[in-house]
Amino acid sequence: MVIIMKTTASPEEIQRVEEEVTRFGFRPFINPGVERKVVALLGELNIEKADLVDHFSTFPGVERVALISQPYKLASRSYHPEQTVITVGPMTLGGKRFSVIAGPCSVESREQLLETARAVKAAGAHALRGGAFKPRTSPYSFQGLGRQGLELLAEARAETGLPVVTEVLDPHEIDLVAEFADMLQIGARNSQNFALLQQAGKRKHPVLLKRGPGVKIDDLLMSAEYMVYGGNYQVAICERGITTFEDSTRYTTDMNAVPVLKDKTHLPVVVDPSHATGDRKYVAAIARAALAAGADGLLIEVHPHPEQALSDGFQSLTPDEFSRLLDELRPIAEAVGRTL
Amino acid sequence: MVIIMKTTASPEEIQRVEEEVTRFGFRPFINPGVERKVVALLGELNIEKADLVDHFSTFPGVERVALISQPYKLASRSYHPEQTVITVGPMTLGGKRFSVIAGPCSVESREQLLETARAVKAAGAHALRGGAFKPRTSPYSFQGLGRQGLELLAEARAETGLPVVTEVLDPHEIDLVAEFADMLQIGARNSQNFALLQQAGKRKHPVLLKRGPGVKIDDLLMSAEYMVYGGNYQVAICERGITTFEDSTRYTTDMNAVPVLKDKTHLPVVVDPSHATGDRKYVAAIARAALAAGADGLLIEVHPHPEQALSDGFQSLTPDEFSRLLDELRPIAEAVGRTL
Amino acid sequence: MVIIMKTTASPEEIQRVEEEVTRFGFRPFINPGVERKVVALLGELNIEKADLVDHFSTFPGVERVALISQPYKLASRSYHPEQTVITVGPMTLGGKRFSVIAGPCSVESREQLLETARAVKAAGAHALRGGAFKPRTSPYSFQGLGRQGLELLAEARAETGLPVVTEVLDPHEIDLVAEFADMLQIGARNSQNFALLQQAGKRKHPVLLKRGPGVKIDDLLMSAEYMVYGGNYQVAICERGITTFEDSTRYTTDMNAVPVLKDKTHLPVVVDPSHATGDRKYVAAIARAALAAGADGLLIEVHPHPEQALSDGFQSLTPDEFSRLLDELRPIAEAVGRTL
Amino acid sequence: MVIIMKTTASPEEIQRVEEEVTRFGFRPFINPGVERKVVALLGELNIEKADLVDHFSTFPGVERVALISQPYKLASRSYHPEQTVITVGPMTLGGKRFSVIAGPCSVESREQLLETARAVKAAGAHALRGGAFKPRTSPYSFQGLGRQGLELLAEARAETGLPVVTEVLDPHEIDLVAEFADMLQIGARNSQNFALLQQAGKRKHPVLLKRGPGVKIDDLLMSAEYMVYGGNYQVAICERGITTFEDSTRYTTDMNAVPVLKDKTHLPVVVDPSHATGDRKYVAAIARAALAAGADGLLIEVHPHPEQALSDGFQSLTPDEFSRLLDELRPIAEAVGRTL
Repeated sequence: MVIIMKTTASPEEIQRVEEEVTRFGFRPFINPGVERKVVALLGELNIEKADLVDHFSTFPGVERVALISQPYKLASRSYHPEQTVITVGPMTLGGKRFSVIAGPCSVESREQLLETARAVKAAGAHALRGGAFKPRTSPYSFQGLGRQGLELLAEARAETGLPVVTEVLDPHEIDLVAEFADMLQIGARNSQNFALLQQAGKRKHPVLLKRGPGVKIDDLLMSAEYMVYGGNYQVAICERGITTFEDSTRYTTDMNAVPVLKDKTHLPVVVDPSHATGDRKYVAAIARAALAAGADGLLIEVHPHPEQALSDGFQSLTPDEFSRLLDELRPIAEAVGRTL
Repeated sequence: MVIIMKTTASPEEIQRVEEEVTRFGFRPFINPGVERKVVALLGELNIEKADLVDHFSTFPGVERVALISQPYKLASRSYHPEQTVITVGPMTLGGKRFSVIAGPCSVESREQLLETARAVKAAGAHALRGGAFKPRTSPYSFQGLGRQGLELLAEARAETGLPVVTEVLDPHEIDLVAEFADMLQIGARNSQNFALLQQAGKRKHPVLLKRGPGVKIDDLLMSAEYMVYGGNYQVAICERGITTFEDSTRYTTDMNAVPVLKDKTHLPVVVDPSHATGDRKYVAAIARAALAAGADGLLIEVHPHPEQALSDGFQSLTPDEFSRLLDELRPIAEAVGRTL
Repeated sequence: MVIIMKTTASPEEIQRVEEEVTRFGFRPFINPGVERKVVALLGELNIEKADLVDHFSTFPGVERVALISQPYKLASRSYHPEQTVITVGPMTLGGKRFSVIAGPCSVESREQLLETARAVKAAGAHALRGGAFKPRTSPYSFQGLGRQGLELLAEARAETGLPVVTEVLDPHEIDLVAEFADMLQIGARNSQNFALLQQAGKRKHPVLLKRGPGVKIDDLLMSAEYMVYGGNYQVAICERGITTFEDSTRYTTDMNAVPVLKDKTHLPVVVDPSHATGDRKYVAAIARAALAAGADGLLIEVHPHPEQALSDGFQSLTPDEFSRLLDELRPIAEAVGRTL
Repeated sequence: MVIIMKTTASPEEIQRVEEEVTRFGFRPFINPGVERKVVALLGELNIEKADLVDHFSTFPGVERVALISQPYKLASRSYHPEQTVITVGPMTLGGKRFSVIAGPCSVESREQLLETARAVKAAGAHALRGGAFKPRTSPYSFQGLGRQGLELLAEARAETGLPVVTEVLDPHEIDLVAEFADMLQIGARNSQNFALLQQAGKRKHPVLLKRGPGVKIDDLLMSAEYMVYGGNYQVAICERGITTFEDSTRYTTDMNAVPVLKDKTHLPVVVDPSHATGDRKYVAAIARAALAAGADGLLIEVHPHPEQALSDGFQSLTPDEFSRLLDELRPIAEAVGRTL
């Protein structure tokens, strides 16, 4: 932490900050002989004292306080340099294999789900996604089949062998969802739902944490830290588009987030081009780009009859389009040293 | 709803959309004699069929589908033109009186809370805020006193007569928090936590719904609609800053949101200049602006010793600063025909 | 400037940075005895060496380089604490008087301009705006009357006594425009047109510099610095809305920018609620808010027949609406200690 | 164009809009028998009348006016389906070959430029970039060598055979720059400098148009339309990062813009990962992603000694890093059916 004093700070103000620094067990030092003073805490800021930035910012005479270290620790690559590889049944995330999780936005019926599961399996997907509990912006939209949807997902897994990824909305439903699902999804709207994150940290089930559309990468990694700090290291991070002024697509894919996340964290990184573009005709381009940029996997919406989907049909690929996409991805995977 | 076909749409594609429009019980009509066809559903779109936009967007030959109506109904002013006035003990929100809710970010101790409560009461505040359950970006930050914090808030109310506003994080803690609090706050991180919104809709306790920093106004009103649809009309909407590229302040106050919300909804509108600026030295200017723009109230952080605050001290006013702010607000309130 | 080394920086890398710091005439100092090193330049960074941040950022072993000072100097309030007051004929900007500049988006005809000029004069405006050279997003839109528009503005000034503010687009037309106009406007699209800024700095005519919709406050002040550095201190800064994800208004008024600019610069601050909202029905609320927040003036579009305007009619007030707005502003001005 | 009336519109208001539609030579039609009226202009909106949206928006009783067509025409793929291929000396943009333009941010000296030119040529670049006139945010930063820089670029071309791309800032310097450069760059700060765009449209020299960091894709294509409308079809569009709330990189690469632009326009699309990330360590990932997403080329900063660069050294690759990047790109180009 670096504490920068105002040019107008009085000797008393500087002394008071020095004393407070000392009170917290650090040794202050001050640059000598010049107008603007810098009081820097020696060494790393103890992560448990992250609130000290706020604390020192309020002192009279202080211009600005800057953290030198990241505000997260266990999720950071500097603390834990080896890449984390998550194993979800036959799928791995974070290793050499590039994994594709595919399926419908919502589980709508037995027929719809099984047809999709067979199709994505045949095309080469590694896991099946599908929402049983749906977070919908509108109270008038289809809210999901609930427990029945979970049972259908389990049936699809039994038939295809694909592990199942599905969303959990309520901290008190984690046990229920984890009973059926191989990987819990924490959705974009709940990216900073700390009650949910804390429970997911305790449960130690693999988690796919989606970035909220207004959440900075550093804050997203703090959300991951909640779970890792709780003891659950099996967390994959998913970029799914952020809100910006650009309105030709529903969200803006933050593709920079892929190399940034790979640099900052050891947790696997997944991209969801379906939500990040909101338009089926742009999904394949962003999927290819994510692979080339270094992501570890994709989350793709597939629906056998997009025009009949109860949610997000506009961004869902048909099974044929999905199969063609995987055919496009294979040579790129090889070109960047991955397998698919 | 207006369905616009591509210039290249075939007669068969147009006919298929017409049939589907008919199937949903609407009467289609098509502009005659020109190249680009428009198929418009007659009348208002039934709000329960909001998913139809997605549905028709996926049909071959369709260029774009646009809603004519707002996607919310019960929360909209066109449906319910009279202004809603919420009564929270002695405070009203939405009437002629401009109300100020003030207090510390977190309840830290009995002394801190009572000292603040007395001070804001003396300065003229209408309600006391304070967090017992704290949503913190970092798992290493102070997480609040929990139930003990709620008890201290009730004690402060007993002494000062100020109604209490405090945040609820978990849908299963609504009953607990409502037992102590006069108004439940749904925080910015939970602005689209639909599990929480649904429970808050059932409970029928006054709610202060904060805008998520990445949430559009229309989506915020959909979150309000969840509660109104559940039967709880006592919902106030709070602008507290959005994420933008500007980094000289922590968030950007979306001041346009004040007249936009007053135009679109009958629910009261509150502004939180403490979070929206993130800096004590800009709070008073934004508080004055919110009053002049037509807001119904303010949410302000006050701490007797900001430099010792366990959270958000940098943006907290001292009791003296808060008292001066209210002195500044009174003549502006009069100038715009409000009382304070 | 503070140079923060990586935890993995070698002694050689630290030494190389030290030597480079010395080479630029500064005295380095290093915090002793701990893992992460900080190499801070003593004293203020000489503003002429602003590129040093980039320079040191590229050195091996360097984690991050932070400026302690603002990147601008002559435009900053810390360098020049007294408020600048600009005198444009009978109008002042930056003093006790709150000034309102009003008029049509474009000069369309003699009748339209004179009718508007008389109306805004009667309502109490202090200056007349109107575009002769129009920066239009589309090449198919009305591009302005050019020199003829300037002559009409001069005629309107002769009749009403209102000083004239109009935009200049091309660095080689500054002399022409300055011949007719009392204040040059540099528009939002040209906020970082450095060729234009440099010429405007040399001309020493009062300038109204509009913020580009994607330009940070610090960069906006750098644009002002171009002119002040060139010798022209008569520069007013205008907030006119920024691009954000919110789409219920055309732009988002960054109201925080008002107290931030008043804090950071001595130059007067103006708000343009017409462009910042893009919708006539929200203009009055934002105008009132800007006054209450501490702005020095307003720029407002007024058109006698908005429905016939060749540009931006949707956001123009009628003369009656403008007159009512000034009536609303007067008591607020009094409440905040200004005159109108 | 679709004109949607308010539910409260009176028969007179509807009639007045109908008459105005007729006055402009269109045939109105109104959906019969229901509450909310839609008045749609028949056929395509004549592009020369783009201002009609604004015009009709101001009529009493009108809720909203929506364009059915794009606001640009000559630059759109629906008007001109065949892909435009620009030939700049030996380089093509828009064809099967994926082209890489590389070089220093600024031309600093003969040695620096020639050393870079030889290195990027050896690595396989197709054109040389380098700034002679530099648009710098700060008046205190290095502003470029001007004409001398242009002469050095011509010398580098003579030696290496690489065509030269360089920026023009002032509409009156287009002839000068075009005398030396093979392709004119219009920089991000001048993306909506209409005086410059108009001159560049007249000159008929190939142009690389960079997206302003706050400019929407539709507005960017309007800037291209200025030049195409002027008769210059040799315009390539360059995505170089937009301003968002994310601050871990300098800008956010809008990777969605690649498939969106390829869909909307026939003009070639280039990505600049150096500016879009602002950090050398993320450039290669975004370059690979751009190729995989379907871009036609890259603009990359290369400097032989980034730590001595007078501008943007932090984001410049060394010649070795650049050479490795091209080795990474070749197999991906093959995987997506391009050559490099």
